[in-house]
Amino acid sequence: MGTQQLESVPEPKYWHLKTVLSEALDSEFSVGEILPNERDLAARFGVARATLRQALEQLELEGRLQRRRGVGTTVAPPRVGVAVGGEQHAWPGAIGDAWQAVDCTEAAPPAAVADILETLHGEQVHVVRRSRMSHGQPVAAELLYIPADSVPALSAIDAPSGAARARAVLRELQRLELEGQDRSVELGSARADDAKELDRLPGAPVLVVTTRFFAEGRTAAVSMATYRADTCRLTFGDSGGVEIHHGPERRAS
Amino acid sequence: MGTQQLESVPEPKYWHLKTVLSEALDSEFSVGEILPNERDLAARFGVARATLRQALEQLELEGRLQRRRGVGTTVAPPRVGVAVGGEQHAWPGAIGDAWQAVDCTEAAPPAAVADILETLHGEQVHVVRRSRMSHGQPVAAELLYIPADSVPALSAIDAPSGAARARAVLRELQRLELEGQDRSVELGSARADDAKELDRLPGAPVLVVTTRFFAEGRTAAVSMATYRADTCRLTFGDSGGVEIHHGPERRAS
Repeated sequence: MGTQQLESVPEPKYWHLKTVLSEALDSEFSVGEILPNERDLAARFGVARATLRQALEQLELEGRLQRRRGVGTTVAPPRVGVAVGGEQHAWPGAIGDAWQAVDCTEAAPPAAVADILETLHGEQVHVVRRSRMSHGQPVAAELLYIPADSVPALSAIDAPSGAARARAVLRELQRLELEGQDRSVELGSARADDAKELDRLPGAPVLVVTTRFFAEGRTAAVSMATYRADTCRLTFGDSGGVEIHHGPERRAS
Repeated sequence: MGTQQLESVPEPKYWHLKTVLSEALDSEFSVGEILPNERDLAARFGVARATLRQALEQLELEGRLQRRRGVGTTVAPPRVGVAVGGEQHAWPGAIGDAWQAVDCTEAAPPAAVADILETLHGEQVHVVRRSRMSHGQPVAAELLYIPADSVPALSAIDAPSGAARARAVLRELQRLELEGQDRSVELGSARADDAKELDRLPGAPVLVVTTRFFAEGRTAAVSMATYRADTCRLTFGDSGGVEIHHGPERRAS
């Protein structure tokens, strides 16, 4: 365990400042309020701008602050719980699905996705782009990779492109019997196209949810969904949402 | 949608640099290799140190780089898939549980946890601390909050403290019939004690998994587990792991 050798590492200055700022947010500011500018804040707490910025970044990581272009830094509302998956398995686009189809193209998936789908690198698959809203805000963007094998009866005629095409692909996919699915969640940074859709800057921290859908003994589709990490809490399980809004520090009594 | 108003936002310089660096990592470096120092890298790519640092931070977010004290910046191995929960529900400490009990104290939980447990703010509960290893490395630290009501037959006599006490509390908890559980995952920053255990600096990005355990029609226990976001990919579901190691960009063909 790293306990002993790290005991001598001093707590970084920005970490202490973060705690102090966090208390100030609780006692002096309300949700949506704009913080004073960095120079004033640095002066008030007697720290360098760089230290202040690091502390603000921490608070942003924890979902306590939001930095918005042209607005400044505001006190963030509690994160929104977004249900990612319960017990029931269902194909994308099934009834009750929270996602909206945006469009559909044919493209070669990233090599890692091709490996899972067991398609050749460079081989084109259907790529359905979908988006997910919550309370009127975009919270997630998804690319869904579906090999031609998974939708053999798909016709190119009636819906050649756009959202209608995406829906046609998903309709065909639903003809397969879904045998199971699994998911992983990891930290990532928003790609330029996702960032645009999520109203963030490229590189903003995001939670990347990868879902594999199994049918006919193989992976019939792979979804890569990018959730805003600043405003979302991903929920899994029985009761549709955990009511803890923040880490344990936030409201420590 | 934010598409239109953001179309005019130029791609930040660090973002472009990140892409270039990412390609250099693929073609010139192998896992574990130490990168040249920041000054040399900045000179090589013709950018300011601040820009370079932002790009390195992005690559760290994506799990491509690791920054370690006294070592420098190294090329990270693929993230390790850590199973967080499948279909079956089980109490903490049940057979097959991946966690090791470290110790047990009595303390007042954070207010948000007290609200879920329906205990009074300031009222003490059992706090079991556990840790989780993977491939010899600590990957997660957990605090498990268990009100006295959930373990009414617990005796203080045979195991007053430490890991033995923790195991006694979990053994008593397992007498209740588990009615269900739910989970949420969100981004956080490591608290000082967790950071120490996980061999990270305070404030490092972590994935916080909150689990509620339901029994007798109420929340019988709450777990707050902090996973290293740099090295872990949390897996959920049927098949025990998704084989995608990286975001779609990483191996884009």
